[in-house]
Amino acid sequence: MSEEMQIVDGAINSPKGFYASGVACGLKKTGDLDLALVVSEVPADACGVFTQNLVKGHSLKWSMDVIGRSKARAVVVNSGNANACLGARGDADAREIASVLAGHLSCGPENVLTGSTGVIGRPLPMDKIRSGILKAVSSLGAGEESGHLAELAIMTTDTVPKEHCVRFRAGDSVVTVAGMAKGSGMIHPNMATMIGILTTDCSIDPVLMKEALSEVTGRSFNRVCVDGDTSVCDMVILLANGQAGNIRIESRDSKEYRRFLKGLETVCVGLAREIAADGEGATKLLEVRVLHAGTPEDALKILQAVAKSPLVKTTMFGEDANWGRILTAAGYSGASFDPGRVTIMLGNLTVCSGGTAVDFDEARAAEILAEHEILITIDLKDGTYSDTIWTCDLTYDYIKINGSYRT
Amino acid sequence: MSEEMQIVDGAINSPKGFYASGVACGLKKTGDLDLALVVSEVPADACGVFTQNLVKGHSLKWSMDVIGRSKARAVVVNSGNANACLGARGDADAREIASVLAGHLSCGPENVLTGSTGVIGRPLPMDKIRSGILKAVSSLGAGEESGHLAELAIMTTDTVPKEHCVRFRAGDSVVTVAGMAKGSGMIHPNMATMIGILTTDCSIDPVLMKEALSEVTGRSFNRVCVDGDTSVCDMVILLANGQAGNIRIESRDSKEYRRFLKGLETVCVGLAREIAADGEGATKLLEVRVLHAGTPEDALKILQAVAKSPLVKTTMFGEDANWGRILTAAGYSGASFDPGRVTIMLGNLTVCSGGTAVDFDEARAAEILAEHEILITIDLKDGTYSDTIWTCDLTYDYIKINGSYRT
Repeated sequence: MSEEMQIVDGAINSPKGFYASGVACGLKKTGDLDLALVVSEVPADACGVFTQNLVKGHSLKWSMDVIGRSKARAVVVNSGNANACLGARGDADAREIASVLAGHLSCGPENVLTGSTGVIGRPLPMDKIRSGILKAVSSLGAGEESGHLAELAIMTTDTVPKEHCVRFRAGDSVVTVAGMAKGSGMIHPNMATMIGILTTDCSIDPVLMKEALSEVTGRSFNRVCVDGDTSVCDMVILLANGQAGNIRIESRDSKEYRRFLKGLETVCVGLAREIAADGEGATKLLEVRVLHAGTPEDALKILQAVAKSPLVKTTMFGEDANWGRILTAAGYSGASFDPGRVTIMLGNLTVCSGGTAVDFDEARAAEILAEHEILITIDLKDGTYSDTIWTCDLTYDYIKINGSYRT
Repeated sequence: MSEEMQIVDGAINSPKGFYASGVACGLKKTGDLDLALVVSEVPADACGVFTQNLVKGHSLKWSMDVIGRSKARAVVVNSGNANACLGARGDADAREIASVLAGHLSCGPENVLTGSTGVIGRPLPMDKIRSGILKAVSSLGAGEESGHLAELAIMTTDTVPKEHCVRFRAGDSVVTVAGMAKGSGMIHPNMATMIGILTTDCSIDPVLMKEALSEVTGRSFNRVCVDGDTSVCDMVILLANGQAGNIRIESRDSKEYRRFLKGLETVCVGLAREIAADGEGATKLLEVRVLHAGTPEDALKILQAVAKSPLVKTTMFGEDANWGRILTAAGYSGASFDPGRVTIMLGNLTVCSGGTAVDFDEARAAEILAEHEILITIDLKDGTYSDTIWTCDLTYDYIKINGSYRT
C-alpha cells in the first residue's frame, strides 16, 4: 500500500472491529430490509451532526442526548417509520429500542445510538422492532455482505445503495474509513440532511474527530439539495473505535490528521454526490459551481437558489439550455453581485457573458445536456470565493413518488 | 346601485375613459395574441410595484424609470419574449417601443409604460413589434371584448384569463376598478410577482393611490406562490384617470377611500387566487393559513416554507393527508414556535393536535383532498398574528411545461 489514500470496495463494517447486519422486521409493506445494525466490538468515540429542523424525530433526539455523554457500541436505524410527532410515546419507544439492544450487547442504553426514517406520525410497532433487533443481533457479521445488507436496510426511496470506503497509512498501521447513507427526498443543504453512518478504526482524539466531521460535512452533505425540504430525522454519525492500532492522532497539524480528513472527505463527498444523483425521480446529477463571489455567503446564497429552483431543475430534465432561469435564480437569491458581469457555462460552453446572451452552438449544448452529469458554472467576476453544490433534475417521477408516499 | 361594492363582469377597459386591444404580432410561434395595449384618453396618475430580482428586464426598467416622473397615457405589454439580459440593445428596444407608441398617441415616450414577459436572452424582433403596435393602436376599443383580448395577449402558460372588476359609489359618482393579470410560473411572494395591470376611473390623490396599491399588494400578489421563482419581469401597475367624476379622494379617513381600498383588494385578491389556481400544471388551489403566530414574520416564514415545499405540494396533488410534511416544513422555516402546541387542519378536519398524530377519519380526509380548493390551517397557539398565502399543487404537468419551455 502506497503512502497515498486508496479508494477501495468496502462496506460500513470494513474498518477493524465493526460488525453489521440488515434485516426485515415488517415495517416496510414490501417486506424489504428495514432494520440496520452497526456494532463496534469495543466502545467507540462518537460524534454527530443533526437536523436543524425545529421538529425533531424521537429516535434522533435520543441520539442527540447520549452522543456527547457516552461512548457508543452500536447504531441501530429503522426505515419505513420516522418515529416522529408522537409525543411521549415516541420518546419512550426510542429509549426502549436502545434498552433492548443494550441488553443483547451487555452495554448501557446510553451506548446505543438510534435513528428512524420514513412516515411521520405513526407509532412504531414495537413488537416487530423487538424481534427485529434480536434478529439483527443474531445476523451480525464482519463480512462485506453483512455491511451491504445494513445499507439496504436504511434505504427508503433510494434506488441505489450508497457506500464508500478508503484506506490510508498512519505510521505502521492501515486506517480504514467507511460510510453509508440514505437519501433521497427532503434533501437540503442544512446541517445533516439525510442519514449517514460513518465508521473508522482510526485512533484519534475525540475533539479532533468532531472537528473533522464538522469541517467535512460543510463541504459534502451540507452541499446537497434535492428538493429543499429538511427532514426531522436527518443525521450523520461517525464512530471511531481505535482498532487500527495507529498511534493516536492528537494534532491537527500532523500528516496523519490531514490524511484522516482527506479520507473522511472522500467518503462523505462520494456519498453526497450519490445522494444528489439518486434524488427522488432524478435522471441527472447537477454540479453547480459559483466562482469569484465577493463573499462566501453570496456564493452559497446563489448555489442554494439555483439548486432549489424548480424552473432550473425542470429545464435540466428537459435538456434545454435555458440559462436565463439560472441567472434569474441568482438574481433573486439575495446575494450581492453585478448581473452585468456574470458568465454562465454549461459544461465548457459559455452561454451567457457579461450578463447578456451570447450566440452559442445549440448542438454542442444539446450534447452537454444529454449527459448524466451536468456542470453549471456561474462566474460572478467579483471577488475570490468559490463554492460547489450538488443537486438533481426535477422530473415526472419525483411527482409520482411523492404524490402517494404515505398510502 | 347600492352603497356597497358590486363585483361585476368587466375588463381592463371597463373604467371610464380606458381603451384596450390585444393583437398577434408574431412573437409567439403559435400565432396567438402577444401584444396588449391599454390606453387612457386623458393622462392618468400611475404607480407600480416591481420585481425585487437583482436582474431586471429592460421593458420593466423603462417603466420603473418613468412611472414616478410623468403621468401615463398607455401601458403596452408583449408576451413571448422577456426583453431581458440583452445589454444596451434591450434598453434601446424598450425606449423605442415607448417612442413608437407615443408617436401614435401624440404623447411623450415618458407617458408610455412597457412590460415584456417570455423567454430571456433573445432580442426582440423590433420590426414585428413596430407593426404590432400600429395594429394594436388601430384596434383599440372601449367594449369588453377589446379588454378581454388584451388579457389574452399578456398570457404565457396561463390556461385561463384572469380579470376582475368592481364598482362602488363615491358621492354621486360610480367608480370602477378593473384588473387583469398573467401568471403562472416563476411565482413567489415577493413584491410584484407577475404582470398585473389595474385601471380605475377614480379621482384620487396620487399619494393615497400609491399607498393603497402597496397595502393591497401585500395582502394579495405578495401572498401567492407557485414555485418560488421570482421573475425578472414582474410588475403590477395601477392607472387612475379620474374620469368617474367623483370628488377627488384626498383623505385616508374618508368612507370613499375605504371603499376604494376594498375595491382594489377585491380585484387584486381575486387575481391572486386565480394566479395560484392556474399555477403551471396545477390541479388544485391551496389556501394556507397560519393562526396565532407570535410575530407576523413567524407567520410569513411558515407560509412561505409550506407553500414552497415540493413535498407538501406533491402530497396535495396525490390527495394524501400526509400532514407530517406540513409540520416538517413549518419546522425548517426558521420561524420560532413550539412544535408541541401545533394543530393542523385540512379543511375542517383536525389531523394533528399538540404536534402529535391524532386518529382522524381517513374517508373524510379523502373527501376534503378531492376538492379543487383545499384549506390548510396551521394553528401555532402562540400569539395573535395570522396570515394567508395561496399556492397550488405540484404535478406532472409542471414538469412537462417547464422541461421544454424555451424550445
